[in-house]
Amino acid sequence: MKLIYTGKTKNVYALEDGNYLLKFKDDVTGEDGKFDPGANTVGLTLEGAGKAGLRLTKFFFEALKEKGIPTHYVDADIEEATMKVKAATVFGEGLEVICRYRAVGSFLRRYGKYAEEGQPLEAFVEVTLKDDARQDPPISEDALDMLGILSKEEYTILKELTKKIGNVVKEELGKKGIELYDIKFEFGRAGETREIILIDEISGGNMRAYKDGKYIEPLELEKLVLGE
Amino acid sequence: MKLIYTGKTKNVYALEDGNYLLKFKDDVTGEDGKFDPGANTVGLTLEGAGKAGLRLTKFFFEALKEKGIPTHYVDADIEEATMKVKAATVFGEGLEVICRYRAVGSFLRRYGKYAEEGQPLEAFVEVTLKDDARQDPPISEDALDMLGILSKEEYTILKELTKKIGNVVKEELGKKGIELYDIKFEFGRAGETREIILIDEISGGNMRAYKDGKYIEPLELEKLVLGE
Repeated sequence: MKLIYTGKTKNVYALEDGNYLLKFKDDVTGEDGKFDPGANTVGLTLEGAGKAGLRLTKFFFEALKEKGIPTHYVDADIEEATMKVKAATVFGEGLEVICRYRAVGSFLRRYGKYAEEGQPLEAFVEVTLKDDARQDPPISEDALDMLGILSKEEYTILKELTKKIGNVVKEELGKKGIELYDIKFEFGRAGETREIILIDEISGGNMRAYKDGKYIEPLELEKLVLGE
Repeated sequence: MKLIYTGKTKNVYALEDGNYLLKFKDDVTGEDGKFDPGANTVGLTLEGAGKAGLRLTKFFFEALKEKGIPTHYVDADIEEATMKVKAATVFGEGLEVICRYRAVGSFLRRYGKYAEEGQPLEAFVEVTLKDDARQDPPISEDALDMLGILSKEEYTILKELTKKIGNVVKEELGKKGIELYDIKFEFGRAGETREIILIDEISGGNMRAYKDGKYIEPLELEKLVLGE
């Protein structure tokens, strides 16, 4: 088992069977010791954050599997805080795909002239480049195509998949009286057919979720969704 | 004749016949006394900049008219530095539509991970919101539609018009050995049919033009294109 990538919240190991192992850390993104799913820096370390994130990820990826939505998930070992995944190649050097149900965060910072804070959005999808040095700039379908990152056909698939997955998460949270404001995903191409599949994780660190108008921290989200 | 808007580089007056009069000023956008077509502040005042901008605008708008491309242009009075235009309504509170032939400026600042400085682009179109407070954020076709600023059908028309107009300008400059790197336009809806037409101006202040690898200042551009 060989460490091939050290990420902000996960390490990645290559397995001999061609799959990969993601090791979830207790680090979460944020700034100045405050959690922020949109941040590019590790903001704080929370004991148990890795396992909690993996439990939620396992839960959501298994829910997606039941619905026939393609992901990189193979299985998970909660005690070890590891998830086995299929090999996939990211688009360019990585994209983030955001699905929004409420106008908050970077959406509001950009489009606040036309949107009110918290205004409902209907599974609105946008794509940003993973590029810390350039503050993850938003990028259009045309630019993705022109720069050879993602074809127009792939963009259409990506957008539809994003809405489907966002809606699965929203529905699951809804069952617990939790409202999803926004969520970010990563996708990649897998196998010889270069099928587009969901990669990375789905946990409190990737979304903004609210209950009774109050923001739910990642660790709390895991408890509310999966119980103690 | 009633002053209805004081802009950074032009004032707008309402005429009794329902048309409007644009009065070109000698102010150009920039920062710290340096001209920058992408800037949101008046950077400097150049004597003759208003008339020079109007001369170029007249030249290009008449070239567009000959090709049947719809604009707000009626006529121009160079001595008065005024242009008579048809009434038009901007999209939302105003958009800038950029057509790019080389990767420079804000494109490079955003997508420098995937593009080299000066790399050729084939009339690449992007849209930004006119919003000084939010640094004119780029906005996607989907977001424009969702926020009620521009429909998808209108976006398609806007993009095609932008490429056509950009190519007319590029061709005219090419005749003088000048290369167009990028240019920004404004559009609006006119008349009962809400036809999309080009508004504002086409001058050195709206574009980056180079000759023999050297950037051409707005006043110099007018001289090179129209002669002394």
